[in-house]
Amino acid sequence: MVGWAIALHGGAGDIPIDLPDERRIPRESALRHCLDLGISALKSGKPPLDVAELVVRELENHPDFNAGKGSVLTAQGTVEMEASIMDGKTKRCGAVSGLTTVVNPISLARLVMEKTPHIYLAFDAAEAFARAHGVETVDSSHFITPENIARLKQAKEFNRVQLDYTVPSPKVPDNCGDSQIGTVGCVAVDSAGNLASATSTGGYVNKMVGRIGDTPVIGAGTYANHLCAISATGKGEDIIRGTVARDVAALMEYKGLSLTEAAAYVVDQSVPRGSCGLVAVSANGEVTMPFNTTGMFRACASEDGYSEIAIWPNN
Amino acid sequence: MVGWAIALHGGAGDIPIDLPDERRIPRESALRHCLDLGISALKSGKPPLDVAELVVRELENHPDFNAGKGSVLTAQGTVEMEASIMDGKTKRCGAVSGLTTVVNPISLARLVMEKTPHIYLAFDAAEAFARAHGVETVDSSHFITPENIARLKQAKEFNRVQLDYTVPSPKVPDNCGDSQIGTVGCVAVDSAGNLASATSTGGYVNKMVGRIGDTPVIGAGTYANHLCAISATGKGEDIIRGTVARDVAALMEYKGLSLTEAAAYVVDQSVPRGSCGLVAVSANGEVTMPFNTTGMFRACASEDGYSEIAIWPNN
Repeated sequence: MVGWAIALHGGAGDIPIDLPDERRIPRESALRHCLDLGISALKSGKPPLDVAELVVRELENHPDFNAGKGSVLTAQGTVEMEASIMDGKTKRCGAVSGLTTVVNPISLARLVMEKTPHIYLAFDAAEAFARAHGVETVDSSHFITPENIARLKQAKEFNRVQLDYTVPSPKVPDNCGDSQIGTVGCVAVDSAGNLASATSTGGYVNKMVGRIGDTPVIGAGTYANHLCAISATGKGEDIIRGTVARDVAALMEYKGLSLTEAAAYVVDQSVPRGSCGLVAVSANGEVTMPFNTTGMFRACASEDGYSEIAIWPNN
Repeated sequence: MVGWAIALHGGAGDIPIDLPDERRIPRESALRHCLDLGISALKSGKPPLDVAELVVRELENHPDFNAGKGSVLTAQGTVEMEASIMDGKTKRCGAVSGLTTVVNPISLARLVMEKTPHIYLAFDAAEAFARAHGVETVDSSHFITPENIARLKQAKEFNRVQLDYTVPSPKVPDNCGDSQIGTVGCVAVDSAGNLASATSTGGYVNKMVGRIGDTPVIGAGTYANHLCAISATGKGEDIIRGTVARDVAALMEYKGLSLTEAAAYVVDQSVPRGSCGLVAVSANGEVTMPFNTTGMFRACASEDGYSEIAIWPNN
């Protein structure tokens, strides 16, 4: 059956199976809330581009995901957020990097798409563009949560050990119980086959100031065309090298694979194990959410009645 | 015959067929000089990654191409340069944007690849990184040539007319006799099949400050894997939407096309007419340089003795 479909994620990574309830439950309920919001919007006839933006805004506003309010911190303890959005039929797209005060980076990415001759604005000029268009901004401290201060401290301690070479390099601890490399994203398709993808992130804990990851890179973190829409999450550098989002679409377009086959191929072949997950929908309402990490915060639904909210592998 | 090959470009665009000799000859001789430099480096056994970087540095240093010394100006009359580089076998890559004082952006992109855990640094932090590594910088005024001041003035006059709506929108004049949307790039392969690509640009005349184009986007302006290496040039936004450089490689990888077939397909199908050109080499020493613009400053050579230096279509 052909129909609408939606999938969203709150990041893939090394999420411990014994994640305490107090960390698991709020995230699951946020995923459920965002999924319901997206389903309602699709059912009420909103274009998938609007739906993907709406759902990502909601994920950005949730402090437990690494984007917007929950953005992780750079090596200097600052936030630098990035996002991108793409419409499948027209291939119109927008992207932003280096945001420090914009509450909803995904909506600024859309504004770049709609109000400039360009696709991608970054850093000071992107902030200035936000102000010129009256986009909601807050003091940068708004984004700096106690959890993210703790994550940065931990990452810096790990780096110090690693640089000493005095002890074997330990695994990065992840006591916070969720990914340090997360992202949020949403893909949606309506029953007419209109497709859209949106992705937003705070980046990588302890990243260098000025670092750009995969999220704003069209073809890496985000891609949509007439066949499918994809939003990826994980280690940005691996996702850039793997041109992950475009590759899912290219395997459908050039090799004739189904969405599920294409997405599984990319997660198995184009990126190292433990580095990547993605959510994707096709023009005919297929949904897939593969990952090669321990887990991925994810949710999906389609018009045929299928729905899933999950963190770890299903079986 | 399998062997080394090299191809380079100095931008694709609306290059008038009646380009005056005083504009044509210096560019042709620069292309010849850069080609010879690349051939010598390949013959002396330098890795293709070094060769591509070396040739792009030379193109950046030439004031007649839109990169480094010849970079076009933003709407505010400033320069913001960007570049990226990629090694085919390892898929290691580096990228930079928003440079204002770095003499050779391509070498900074390589330094990001080699000296950071990241791929891509931008704006102030990229400049700071350059200084921290003792990279050659100059005052920003070094890059602002009289020709580029004239180009910006012309572009602004065109925009003013367009915004007035008092006269029919004219075609952007191009009295400077070469592309306003140029880029420089080089791809190289050695007889062992090692591949590399490098691309560098000043961007688009009259671009918004903070705009990022296709050049630093891995998969758009630059891509290399075990099969081929590609450097694209033209209208950055179209090249991003078309994921041009990755698509050439994806058509070889997933559809089994030859390099020449794949590159021709992308230039015909993935981007609007008048928007794009590219140079590409394959692991077995094939070379191709298609474009759908009036012309593309380009040069290539391969071990089998073939060589070409050209601006307009060959026949």
